[in-house]
Amino acid sequence: MDIISDPQQMQQRALAEKRAGRRVALVPTMGYLHAGHRSLLQEGRKRGDFLVLSLFVNPTQFGPSEDLSTYPRDLEADLALARAAGVDVVWTPTPQEVYPAGYATWVAVEGGLTTTLCGASRPGHFRGVTTVVSKLFNVVQPDVALFGEKDFQQLAVIRQMVRDLNFPIEIVGMPIVREADGLAMSSRNVYLTPDQRRQALVLSQALALARELAAAGERESATILATLRQLIAAQPDARIDYLHICHQTTLQEQARIDAAAVLLLAVFIGKTRLIDNGFLL
Amino acid sequence: MDIISDPQQMQQRALAEKRAGRRVALVPTMGYLHAGHRSLLQEGRKRGDFLVLSLFVNPTQFGPSEDLSTYPRDLEADLALARAAGVDVVWTPTPQEVYPAGYATWVAVEGGLTTTLCGASRPGHFRGVTTVVSKLFNVVQPDVALFGEKDFQQLAVIRQMVRDLNFPIEIVGMPIVREADGLAMSSRNVYLTPDQRRQALVLSQALALARELAAAGERESATILATLRQLIAAQPDARIDYLHICHQTTLQEQARIDAAAVLLLAVFIGKTRLIDNGFLL
Repeated sequence: MDIISDPQQMQQRALAEKRAGRRVALVPTMGYLHAGHRSLLQEGRKRGDFLVLSLFVNPTQFGPSEDLSTYPRDLEADLALARAAGVDVVWTPTPQEVYPAGYATWVAVEGGLTTTLCGASRPGHFRGVTTVVSKLFNVVQPDVALFGEKDFQQLAVIRQMVRDLNFPIEIVGMPIVREADGLAMSSRNVYLTPDQRRQALVLSQALALARELAAAGERESATILATLRQLIAAQPDARIDYLHICHQTTLQEQARIDAAAVLLLAVFIGKTRLIDNGFLL
Repeated sequence: MDIISDPQQMQQRALAEKRAGRRVALVPTMGYLHAGHRSLLQEGRKRGDFLVLSLFVNPTQFGPSEDLSTYPRDLEADLALARAAGVDVVWTPTPQEVYPAGYATWVAVEGGLTTTLCGASRPGHFRGVTTVVSKLFNVVQPDVALFGEKDFQQLAVIRQMVRDLNFPIEIVGMPIVREADGLAMSSRNVYLTPDQRRQALVLSQALALARELAAAGERESATILATLRQLIAAQPDARIDYLHICHQTTLQEQARIDAAAVLLLAVFIGKTRLIDNGFLL
């Protein structure tokens, strides 16, 4: 397994692999890898001849009051997981290599897909995501790129960008991987105290409760959401950032649920913001 | 020579050529080709094994009061010129193919490079240019792309975008091609009446005069520009849009001229806006 920092060196390597006829798979991450990332790498290993893992905590997708400076990092553990997953190249550029002095170009998906949900809570977040993902794509030249469905809105935004800008890249979304008790895997789970870790179960419990209500015949989003709000309010350190039932592709709110309805929620547990989502039917 | 409309078909063809080891050259144009475009194609023919000419009058780079609806078109003449220049594929997508319903993604270079000169006169123009050029690049996957230096600012903006977004593409700028009497070749020259055509010579005459003054030792931009303003004002149908001496890469105005100083001018001749530029030393 090779470890590359310089973007030009990464690009030259990727172009050489492609010229040799190999199919390139990319798993873009911010590092501090967990079992969710491992599932992306395992699928990437199946779908590509040459598997690249990028590790880059992208400053442009963090707001000024967010956790860029404290975002967890553990390069040695990430490299061990990458090796075990059969990664060919780990690309770990520095912020200065990705955004050199005089950097001025931005890629943005405009409209409803980026102004609701996380886009409303985190202005500029998706502009940072689409800009860095465009750059990752141009450097690594993947035939296939894999993203987790936990970041459901991010995946929708990236699919729109890929379609709009004609990137010749297959985008694969992979199911959320959960801890044994239901908590969705996230690098940010490390922020939680033991008591908060227990309270954080309310996200997956809310999703399970919504599915129970749906299975019992409830179709009114407002009724389901009111019940979930009560459930979440019972946790002393939980504060809802958003809680919506949306259409899976437009992300517009749905008054009644159907097979396209996704529950999307973001909840602060203390100072840690966690997200989760899932289909209801 | 093949003629393709569908972007996916164009992309599949380009990817196949690349897999076969061929070097792809792209000349992006809005059609109504002239000798300036021919020089791009001739250079592209030398630099690539597979030469693509795109013909697309890009609506997103025109302002609401500009000449999108009247922009000149002559597909048959363009195809004849392309054939003579040895083009392999002419790509002529429709506006609906380039910007399908629900289109939402924009690529923009921010800051001084796009807010001065044509960026000040034509708000949103460069956002339309960088967006469509990103799409052309992703569809045609060129190793090299050729642009005319007449659009000096456009070339600087595209170079910045390519560097910032890590496109693995060599950008080649080709010298302005002029009519025998000095008028820079432009598809928009067709708008000029015979009398306006004569008055339009004032752009290249201004450039020549600026070079004479520089050759005679004048270094003060303000002095040179004042003289040029007088020259241009003598033409009854000429109205200066802008007239600046700028640094070749930053496009910031220079008070004194040196080897990096470029005269950039945009002048309305009647309703037709023409541009020209050149180094002074």
